[in-house]
Parts: sequence; structure tokens; C-alpha cells
Amino acid sequence: MSKCVFCEIVAGRIPCTRIYENDEVLAFLDVGPISDGHTLVIPKAHYNRLHHCPAEVLAEVAKVVGRLANPVAEAVGADGYNVLSNNAPAAGQVVEHLHVHIIPRKSGDDVFNRWPAFKYPPGKAESIAEKIKQKLAK
Amino acid sequence: MSKCVFCEIVAGRIPCTRIYENDEVLAFLDVGPISDGHTLVIPKAHYNRLHHCPAEVLAEVAKVVGRLANPVAEAVGADGYNVLSNNAPAAGQVVEHLHVHIIPRKSGDDVFNRWPAFKYPPGKAESIAEKIKQKLAK
Repeated sequence: MSKCVFCEIVAGRIPCTRIYENDEVLAFLDVGPISDGHTLVIPKAHYNRLHHCPAEVLAEVAKVVGRLANPVAEAVGADGYNVLSNNAPAAGQVVEHLHVHIIPRKSGDDVFNRWPAFKYPPGKAESIAEKIKQKLAK
Repeated sequence: MSKCVFCEIVAGRIPCTRIYENDEVLAFLDVGPISDGHTLVIPKAHYNRLHHCPAEVLAEVAKVVGRLANPVAEAVGADGYNVLSNNAPAAGQVVEHLHVHIIPRKSGDDVFNRWPAFKYPPGKAESIAEKIKQKLAK
């Protein structure tokens, strides 16, 4: 198995621009940012996807995201921020170690504006909800 | 102050297609989905932004997201999912009550593919990191 670049960063064998860390979580600047200050928050332990991450670890990641989001945005003079986790290549995940992006945003920027909303035909939402609840119950 | 639509949903005065709830968190299908199964996870209490939400509440929201993400994706035959929270209008937030989107994704769909990555010029990442750390220390 090839080495995970984020595990290498956690181990200190690949450098990063570190923002914050505690026992379970590390935050550092994305080296390929999509806006100034674009930060990644990761669990130090390796999990490929968000749903693989134990609830308590995910909770710690979320707490760090909540603590960092506004300071990150304010530091670069942003007007808001996106918190984003892409899971699986189909969703744009590139590094196979769970990571949460904090993406500072400025009014009128063109970073991330696609939002192709639609409406469900009658009955479809209820049918999907039923399938989700069946999966949840397993 | 005008009524918050998500608070009205929590109170049961506006209907929703409910997926899951516990004492602190509610999950339901987005009425304006950008993919089939697009789900919103919200704290029942009202906080405008993620960084306004107390750490323990945010942790509960994250746990529900972790529990729901894969069942939501599997229920619609998706290959992955994005977890996204837009904070402030500049970042695309429309309803001013913290919400986390779970957006099922299929390989090759065109839901959400813009990723305008760049590289920092020398020294800029370190300078931004320093500013963030100063904000964090306050």
C-alpha cells in the first residue's frame, strides 16, 4: 500500500503550514487552495471516509472546525466560509484520508457558486426517505 | 424578526420529509435538492453560523452526519457524497439557521465540480497562517 500523504504530514515526514493541533486533530493550510486561507482539518488517525470515522473522533474534528472557521475567515478578510468534506472520488475526494475543508469566501467571488437545484416530482421525496430509513435501520 | 423556516420545521409548523431526529438534531430532505437524496442536518436550536454553535451541539450534528451519510448515499445508489455547510451569504448560505448538506454524488455527474486551485507565492502561506494563529489566540 502506498503511503498516505496526510498520515505522512501527521508524522512530520512531509511538511505543512500548521494552524492548530491537539491529540486527535490537525489543521493546516491546503497547498492547493481555492481561496486564500483554505484550511484542512483532519483526524490524525487514518480513515478514508467520513462515515468510517468513529463518532467521537468525528465530534473532535467538528469541534476544531467550529473553533477555526471564523478565525480563518477573519484572517483573510473573508465575508463567510464553506465547510466541505468530499467523500469518494465521485464526490471530488483526492486524498484518501478524511479531511474537512474550511474555504474562506468573499462576496461576489467565483470560487464555488454552482447550485443546480431542482424539485422532486410528487411522491419521490417520500420514496427516497423511506429507502434511507430502511438503510439506517440495518 | 421574521420567522426562521428551519425553526418552523423543527416546531412542526412547516412540514418536511423527515429522515432522522434526536433531542438536539433533525435531518430531512432538502426541498430544493441538487441531487436525489440531498439531506439537511440541523441543530434544533437556532444558530446562524457554524461558529456560533456550541462545540457540544456541533459535535452532535457531526455524529448524525456521520451516521446518515452512507445510508443516504446508498439509498439513492450514489458513489460518494459531499458534506457541506455554507456560512454567510457570501458563501451561499440562504437560510440563516446552521445546516449541513449531505449531497449524494454519482461518478461523472455535474453537480459540483468546480475546484479552482492555485498555488501561494513564496511566503504567503506562512503569513496567512500567522494571521490565523493570532486570531485564534484572541
